[in-house]
Amino acid sequence: MSDFVSLLGDVPLTTDAAIVKRKSRDFYWYSPVLKARLDGLSADVLLTPRDEADLLAIAQAARASGTPLTARGGGTGNYGQAVPLAGGAVVDMSGFDRLLWVRDGVARVQAGMNMLALDRALRENGRELRMFPSTKRTATIGGFICGGSGGIGSVTWGGLRNTGNLLGVRLVSLEDEPRAVELRGAETRVVNHAYGTTGLVSELEIPVAAAVAWQDLALAFPTLAEACAFARRFAMQNGLEKKLVSVADAALVPYFAPLREATPARHAVVLLMVAPSALAATEELAGDMGGVVVHRAVTAEAEDDPTRVPLYELTWNHTTLQVLKKDRAHTYLQTGFPVRDTLALVARMADLLGDEMMTHLEFIPNEGEMSCAGLPVLRYTTPERLAEIIALYESHGIVVANPHVYTIEDGGAHRVVSPQLAADKQRFDPLGLLNPGKMRSFDALKPA
Amino acid sequence: MSDFVSLLGDVPLTTDAAIVKRKSRDFYWYSPVLKARLDGLSADVLLTPRDEADLLAIAQAARASGTPLTARGGGTGNYGQAVPLAGGAVVDMSGFDRLLWVRDGVARVQAGMNMLALDRALRENGRELRMFPSTKRTATIGGFICGGSGGIGSVTWGGLRNTGNLLGVRLVSLEDEPRAVELRGAETRVVNHAYGTTGLVSELEIPVAAAVAWQDLALAFPTLAEACAFARRFAMQNGLEKKLVSVADAALVPYFAPLREATPARHAVVLLMVAPSALAATEELAGDMGGVVVHRAVTAEAEDDPTRVPLYELTWNHTTLQVLKKDRAHTYLQTGFPVRDTLALVARMADLLGDEMMTHLEFIPNEGEMSCAGLPVLRYTTPERLAEIIALYESHGIVVANPHVYTIEDGGAHRVVSPQLAADKQRFDPLGLLNPGKMRSFDALKPA
Repeated sequence: MSDFVSLLGDVPLTTDAAIVKRKSRDFYWYSPVLKARLDGLSADVLLTPRDEADLLAIAQAARASGTPLTARGGGTGNYGQAVPLAGGAVVDMSGFDRLLWVRDGVARVQAGMNMLALDRALRENGRELRMFPSTKRTATIGGFICGGSGGIGSVTWGGLRNTGNLLGVRLVSLEDEPRAVELRGAETRVVNHAYGTTGLVSELEIPVAAAVAWQDLALAFPTLAEACAFARRFAMQNGLEKKLVSVADAALVPYFAPLREATPARHAVVLLMVAPSALAATEELAGDMGGVVVHRAVTAEAEDDPTRVPLYELTWNHTTLQVLKKDRAHTYLQTGFPVRDTLALVARMADLLGDEMMTHLEFIPNEGEMSCAGLPVLRYTTPERLAEIIALYESHGIVVANPHVYTIEDGGAHRVVSPQLAADKQRFDPLGLLNPGKMRSFDALKPA
Repeated sequence: MSDFVSLLGDVPLTTDAAIVKRKSRDFYWYSPVLKARLDGLSADVLLTPRDEADLLAIAQAARASGTPLTARGGGTGNYGQAVPLAGGAVVDMSGFDRLLWVRDGVARVQAGMNMLALDRALRENGRELRMFPSTKRTATIGGFICGGSGGIGSVTWGGLRNTGNLLGVRLVSLEDEPRAVELRGAETRVVNHAYGTTGLVSELEIPVAAAVAWQDLALAFPTLAEACAFARRFAMQNGLEKKLVSVADAALVPYFAPLREATPARHAVVLLMVAPSALAATEELAGDMGGVVVHRAVTAEAEDDPTRVPLYELTWNHTTLQVLKKDRAHTYLQTGFPVRDTLALVARMADLLGDEMMTHLEFIPNEGEMSCAGLPVLRYTTPERLAEIIALYESHGIVVANPHVYTIEDGGAHRVVSPQLAADKQRFDPLGLLNPGKMRSFDALKPA
């Protein structure tokens, strides 16, 4: 490690153990399985590069000394993406915090920019993020793209890996001669959801949407089935501009501070972000389908007030977090429902799992057809029972992106990454120094 | 008629037969069947009201004298919507030409405003029309909503009758005491595609989109099947912002002035309007699927230049028009393909009809699932053969909105209107003076 540090020149760093340890963690503790596996792991040093020259110095020093590097954004991932398995250095990208330009519906941004700050800066240009995670207030754009898969906005724009949602990437490679590499179009897939294993990503070019004055709207329905039927129908209304369509079981409502008092007992809720132009028609449609309004707010006003909770902080991975804040005996899964018979399968899983599971859905198109992701909140007992539940979902044709593992492959619905991704890692990081242990298929390429 | 005119006060009018006759026609002549049926029909007088007081005076005078009224926008309908079957007065709404306000993604506009002028006025507010017909340069917003069903923009926003695409309507009724009526939300369906039979529509409130610098992009593919496969796949990419996805058979390309020289022989074409942020990814996807770029332009530049043709003027009902300009021996159909096995059915109909039909598709979602409308251009022989072809489409599960008839019912895919619509007409026009003969189910309500 002293070799490595001595090669870094004036790159800012600290070896203060408490700080380094804090910056070696993310939200992996959602999973009791990952908690047991990853607790206590830490890098040896924390680097806070200021610019591309610092990244190049870090890459060269890492190669010369064989030091592992784990890039870090806001540390809000749930798969241990930012936890170094083999020590070395954590590269904190938060200094890369500038919006570089916005034009023609495209923004160029440094990878470490906080997503709330980015959205606010985009709004000054009449634009906004197409999609963001429920951790928007703390996450970075680079962490979202390198570690996430979608979020608020995906009901309209699809997932982060869908064509057109990432236009360009700049990264510093760990090739024999480390250098800055600019990737365009489909080539950018080398960084999507690769946990930082394929390069030190410094800049991103993303399409941005026109700014909308989003409205938070929560609707209560007497049954989960009615809530799901409305949510799906609403999600499929092309004429209603929307950013979020979530469903939560009645059992989750007590964990939702902004809703629990106003929601009638035993009612499931649908959480929406809708454009002002869609508000009246949405409420009319909900009323026709048995829903009542239990909460209305201007999303930005709730977001700007630290004492309030925008509805999106009850959705996506925050749904589980709201439960965990009160009760650590729960965990969750990430699942994808097929586009046919979606709601029948949702009902079937709720029946099969009873009060061991609280249904939570996020509507998102799958290859252009409306479907939904399920992020069920589970009462946790043992790893064996968790494995049984995963098998139960899969036996019904519901794919599971298992959030109780830390490799890219095991956390993916298909348990593999594309051969191209492993080949790209081989090209950009032949020594395997970037977030080592996270890409199984690259490790398999290496001589033993 | 002199009774009627004497009751009108100072409402501007003319009885000049040549002018009245010209303003009693629309584009019904696309159909040789309608041409035979409607040629020569004319109103007796042309009214050009200036304001709501004029509309009220017209409504009162029509009731007092039993005079039929046929409202008219740009006269670009193809079903004879604006052709008076029983004489009387044509009410030319072109004086209602003002954009009243734009806020929070909603515009309030007078019904007679030209759609190109409206789109330009919206752009001054950073907005644009969600959808418009290929006749944008001449059509009015009121005519589009009262006589149309969708158009350029529908691939993203759905059809005009989909929830959320019409928020408010103001009309002057022909009740016992004619009055101005304001309709909101689902009530507005009373005017959608009702051919002006349910009221004299004076104002409309519509959601508007954020302005985009659309790019015209035409791609050539060696086969119709490849063109269709790309078009469908592109239409289903949520990450690629788009306004238009059309497919035209190789046989149509010689009729397309902007494309015929650049398109390789025997190649089908896909005509797109894409956002600047989507251009590179779209071309990359097209290249991967066997397409070559044959035309690129900035849509607004082509639209602003009277000597140029924006790609949208090769699509929707303009496709047939481009053929008819050169060869009156053709006509067309309006069809809707099911959401399953869509492209297999497209191929099947092309096989069955051979060179009697040129395939033309417009991609549009159907209840939230991507499908396409077909507006096939047909070599016309006899009404009997035309009926056979319609039956052939229907026997394959493809719905036909027959454009060779003039009633709302017969031109609809289901040959009926909702009982509610006939009841609404009974309420707003109990004497049946508005565009008489166009709503069969209302006529059936009347005592013989």
